[in-house]
Amino acid sequence: MNLLLLTSDQCCDNVATIIGRQFEHLRVVQRAEVGDSVRVGMLNGLMGEAIITAIDNNRASLEVSFDTPPPEVLPLTLILALPRPKMLRRTLQSIAAMGVKKLYLINSVRVEKSFWQTPILKPEAIEEQLILGLEQAKDTLLPEVYLRNLFKPFVEDELEDIIKGSQALVAHPDTATPCPIDCSAEVTLAIGPEGGFIPYEIEKLNQIGFDPVHLGPRILRVENAVPALISRLFPA
Amino acid sequence: MNLLLLTSDQCCDNVATIIGRQFEHLRVVQRAEVGDSVRVGMLNGLMGEAIITAIDNNRASLEVSFDTPPPEVLPLTLILALPRPKMLRRTLQSIAAMGVKKLYLINSVRVEKSFWQTPILKPEAIEEQLILGLEQAKDTLLPEVYLRNLFKPFVEDELEDIIKGSQALVAHPDTATPCPIDCSAEVTLAIGPEGGFIPYEIEKLNQIGFDPVHLGPRILRVENAVPALISRLFPA
Repeated sequence: MNLLLLTSDQCCDNVATIIGRQFEHLRVVQRAEVGDSVRVGMLNGLMGEAIITAIDNNRASLEVSFDTPPPEVLPLTLILALPRPKMLRRTLQSIAAMGVKKLYLINSVRVEKSFWQTPILKPEAIEEQLILGLEQAKDTLLPEVYLRNLFKPFVEDELEDIIKGSQALVAHPDTATPCPIDCSAEVTLAIGPEGGFIPYEIEKLNQIGFDPVHLGPRILRVENAVPALISRLFPA
Repeated sequence: MNLLLLTSDQCCDNVATIIGRQFEHLRVVQRAEVGDSVRVGMLNGLMGEAIITAIDNNRASLEVSFDTPPPEVLPLTLILALPRPKMLRRTLQSIAAMGVKKLYLINSVRVEKSFWQTPILKPEAIEEQLILGLEQAKDTLLPEVYLRNLFKPFVEDELEDIIKGSQALVAHPDTATPCPIDCSAEVTLAIGPEGGFIPYEIEKLNQIGFDPVHLGPRILRVENAVPALISRLFPA
């Protein structure tokens, strides 16, 4: 945790109360003491510094001040075939940490039906993982996550509008075009499931304007493909 | 698994015998049957195709032929502060999947001493993870992994020789220089532990020729930093 992300519920004037997971982290991992300074952020707001003014058995009080805007948002909408639950948790943390602010988790023939049943897809569980990613990266803006468990209606009725005004790319190993470097424009990027999108799905995406691009001769898992693609499209 | 990686022990002339983990994968995940074709590679050798000629309860026989060289090696030596065991396993898979062929796992003040005790650092356990990464990526060349559990002697006595002829970079959030894009030269890249290298360590690395570079305003975990940095330094 490189930033303690606060919600307005936790704050009253310039005093914040820390309990639960965040308190445990302060106490056990950071071994924070009264008088220490910690970096804080207001969820969907500014970042700043806080001084610890009191610590007891299960809570800490902080005097907070906010003055710095969060890092710039990536001009990216990510369309991701729903990963298996074990990987979903990490993926949500990663996309939040990398600055993605809009994510569609979609179905695909190679997404197992059971993946849609995982409790990690509950809104509060998604938010929990996203917040861990923001706290890691020092960011405050919560990504929006949308679930679309039918591929065809999503692509036909919704995706065409989503990609308007953006460069639409689909990561696909079987293509001759490498992923572009340093895109200055808005990008919509689709990444398939383990085993990839099937030819029909690539064709549907292609029909509405997605260009297939590859990441080199090696086939990467989604956990490596996401940072590799984002880092190439939007270098710092 | 996008490639079945075979060792010379498994092969006699052009016949290979598949048992254990690889057999289970063929049978349960790929639901392979006699007559099916699968992609194969010889460890540290060529890649090719195989036809399944027989399957029984605990083994399969393949008729193999090798004709294709593995993907090109990345001109990169990676120096990584030893990650915590949970992350180490994934990191070994990732670096193998991304094409890194030389990895030094080193100590740093912020590496917990207990991390060096993990059984994942046994040579056979390291190799197991590396092979999973190669099978994912479709590659055959096993990375070399070196363990260096003393920071100062490693940097003073060994690292200066390692970086000769390469561009030496250390990932460090507190610097003004962004990580370069599309390096054509050899690179030696150092990545710190959770919480980063301490100033003394950065100074030691700097003294022998490492330039600090950043990856943007967000602080990434090693599991995201590695693919993000590699993808930026060596676009396909």
